[in-house]
Amino acid sequence: MLDAVEAKDTERLNALLEPLYSADIADLLEQISAPERRELLRLWSREIDGEILSELSEGIREEVIEQLPPEVLSEAVRELDSDDVVDLIEDLEEPHQEAILEALDVADRVAVEQSLAYPDYSAGRLMQRETVVAPEHWTVGEAIDYLRGAEWLPDQFYHVILVDPRMRPLANVTLGRILSAKRSTKMRDIAEEIFRTIRATESETEVAYLFNQYHLISAPVVDDADRLVGVITIDDAMNVLDEEHEEDILRLAGVGEGSITDNWIEVTKQRFPWLFVNLLTAILASGVISIFEGTISKIVALAVLMPIVASQGGNAATQGLAVAVRALATKSLTRSNVLRVIRREIAQGVANGVMFALVMGVIAFFWFDRPMIGVVIGMAMIINLFAAALAGLLIPLGLEKMGFDPALASGAFVTTVTDVVGFFSFLGLAGLILL
Amino acid sequence: MLDAVEAKDTERLNALLEPLYSADIADLLEQISAPERRELLRLWSREIDGEILSELSEGIREEVIEQLPPEVLSEAVRELDSDDVVDLIEDLEEPHQEAILEALDVADRVAVEQSLAYPDYSAGRLMQRETVVAPEHWTVGEAIDYLRGAEWLPDQFYHVILVDPRMRPLANVTLGRILSAKRSTKMRDIAEEIFRTIRATESETEVAYLFNQYHLISAPVVDDADRLVGVITIDDAMNVLDEEHEEDILRLAGVGEGSITDNWIEVTKQRFPWLFVNLLTAILASGVISIFEGTISKIVALAVLMPIVASQGGNAATQGLAVAVRALATKSLTRSNVLRVIRREIAQGVANGVMFALVMGVIAFFWFDRPMIGVVIGMAMIINLFAAALAGLLIPLGLEKMGFDPALASGAFVTTVTDVVGFFSFLGLAGLILL
Repeated sequence: MLDAVEAKDTERLNALLEPLYSADIADLLEQISAPERRELLRLWSREIDGEILSELSEGIREEVIEQLPPEVLSEAVRELDSDDVVDLIEDLEEPHQEAILEALDVADRVAVEQSLAYPDYSAGRLMQRETVVAPEHWTVGEAIDYLRGAEWLPDQFYHVILVDPRMRPLANVTLGRILSAKRSTKMRDIAEEIFRTIRATESETEVAYLFNQYHLISAPVVDDADRLVGVITIDDAMNVLDEEHEEDILRLAGVGEGSITDNWIEVTKQRFPWLFVNLLTAILASGVISIFEGTISKIVALAVLMPIVASQGGNAATQGLAVAVRALATKSLTRSNVLRVIRREIAQGVANGVMFALVMGVIAFFWFDRPMIGVVIGMAMIINLFAAALAGLLIPLGLEKMGFDPALASGAFVTTVTDVVGFFSFLGLAGLILL
Repeated sequence: MLDAVEAKDTERLNALLEPLYSADIADLLEQISAPERRELLRLWSREIDGEILSELSEGIREEVIEQLPPEVLSEAVRELDSDDVVDLIEDLEEPHQEAILEALDVADRVAVEQSLAYPDYSAGRLMQRETVVAPEHWTVGEAIDYLRGAEWLPDQFYHVILVDPRMRPLANVTLGRILSAKRSTKMRDIAEEIFRTIRATESETEVAYLFNQYHLISAPVVDDADRLVGVITIDDAMNVLDEEHEEDILRLAGVGEGSITDNWIEVTKQRFPWLFVNLLTAILASGVISIFEGTISKIVALAVLMPIVASQGGNAATQGLAVAVRALATKSLTRSNVLRVIRREIAQGVANGVMFALVMGVIAFFWFDRPMIGVVIGMAMIINLFAAALAGLLIPLGLEKMGFDPALASGAFVTTVTDVVGFFSFLGLAGLILL
């Protein structure tokens, strides 16, 4: 394809890109370099539509929008449902936002602006304003006639929402049941048993959780007076779940955000702050070692062994941390089982501590000519795996309690505890026992 | 609720549990302790239905099934769609599987057994056998009449699949469009533009990727002869996505598997092997230190500073690793951009390396009375962050290339590289420059 771009062969380019789905074209745009992208857009910008723009990652999207002729941009945006427009423009800079809003019809523009009035990462941002509703007393026949006569229906809808006269949603009826029921059947008699409304101000994390927990396909969104203001469909929820996943993995690894399309300067800036935090915690651990400089200068073997104690503790803590963060995200770690889980982690820490104390004690016994060094490292190992079990669980729990994302308890923080405890217990015990 | 259990007050228990959704009842069963669960089931087992069983996590599910009276179990299973039955029994032990299969009607039993014949974690295991199809030449009117006359339709369906006479799927028509189109419209004229079939032997990871990438709601599953054998719906794909998420997080942290409901013995067993691997890699790193025992015994400050070099490298590598694993999972790191990403990571590693070399060099300069120690730690920092950038990217890439899950490049492996390089470069340079 890049050959066709280089040869400025628009026809061949069309033949290559035409059969692809929007998501694949977007991936392709993301994977080529910035100059190649510029060249491709010069030849092919007329074909960029709203769907392709929706699929692009933020940074690249902004770049592409800048290069699109205004009439292509407005055409592209006009095809989209309101939730996709919101998703498209919420991260753009002010002037780009304006340009897109102006391209919309007045009604669409108002809908988009209302959605933008909800906080970032709220259900209000996620929902589409286009809903399909019916009065609760309708029959299936009335609903079908209404749908058939409707001038316009959303691209995606899976339920007819039953509402009361004040537009408060009461139940969902799946299209499958409408299609298979008799015309005279009351809509309310074939409503789904499971029905959850979502408040527009609720966080999108909560939305993803609800969809996952209750296997929802779509859910009505309501305002503070319980009136219907939109609907969220499962594809949006799946998208959020995927983004949360990314966020958890990156945060646990101490990367605030990061995309494979960022350039090296952006990447350096993203990673510097966390590395800086880690440097401070590492200096703290070194401070502990420096207390025992005298001990180390007498028994250099301690310097050789001390990273083992710290490393085992760090790894054990990271294991517990991952399980805890995941359990908190799925709401399976709650008040009713937290004490049981704490006891379990401690038991596990002590059990693995004792086993590794034996293994490492024997190794150290034969490695160095001081047999007591095996006893010291064994004791330090038990202490540190105990500390690791507590840190891996209590730090994320504490963060959650204080309203932070528990995934922020990234390696750096938790391993500070195990480094400090590991060095202190090992060198301290060595000072007491070996000297 | 536990009060009601303790008081053996079945009526109050019913009043409490009746209004809850299955997913919530399952959560509740998971969060109480094993004896409490046994007590609750003794009072309330008649009310356990198939949906609740589906929602339970594996370990707990097995425990509950053992305690259910056989007739409750068969009743529970008979309500479920075939994919849910498969999901329910695939992880059970042989005798439990048999018991459930025998409870099914012959037709259902055959369907479930055919699904079970597909490999673990394949699309064939994920799909439901129940599909709604129509010949490609039908009109909307014919389809609606057929649906209305059908004796039985699946609980969940979002498309009518158009098939040719040999049952090969050709297109999907959403129910929304069927409901809003004229009776005389040809079904094929209102088919969705996006259409993907999934081979039954494809992995569920690939299924989740396809649903996420193309925003599918349901997709037909075909056999090797391209004939329709089932359908996968988005809720199943979302479930897989969520499980993959869990797997990535746990593997990156060096936990093979693990659930908040496991007891301490299971947890100890799960974590031991990875901690053991870590111990071996930590001993390797210690071996590097022991080469330089002579150097350390002359300058004990080196023992104080060396963990800082290793720790910064380990953290930088973990950052790169998380970004790489995530990019590989979303297929956004491919042959067309891998060289660009490698260059970017190296540039980032050197840039952060230089910055931290300056910071740490100055700190060490003032901390210890040997000014050259600042130069040594600065140089080691640059070398180690360079190594970290390479290890964090190339190790997961190599694993992927060899057909392994790149998330297996857990902290333990990647940090071995940075520990070894960190200790070697810092102590080696110290020996050359300071002695």
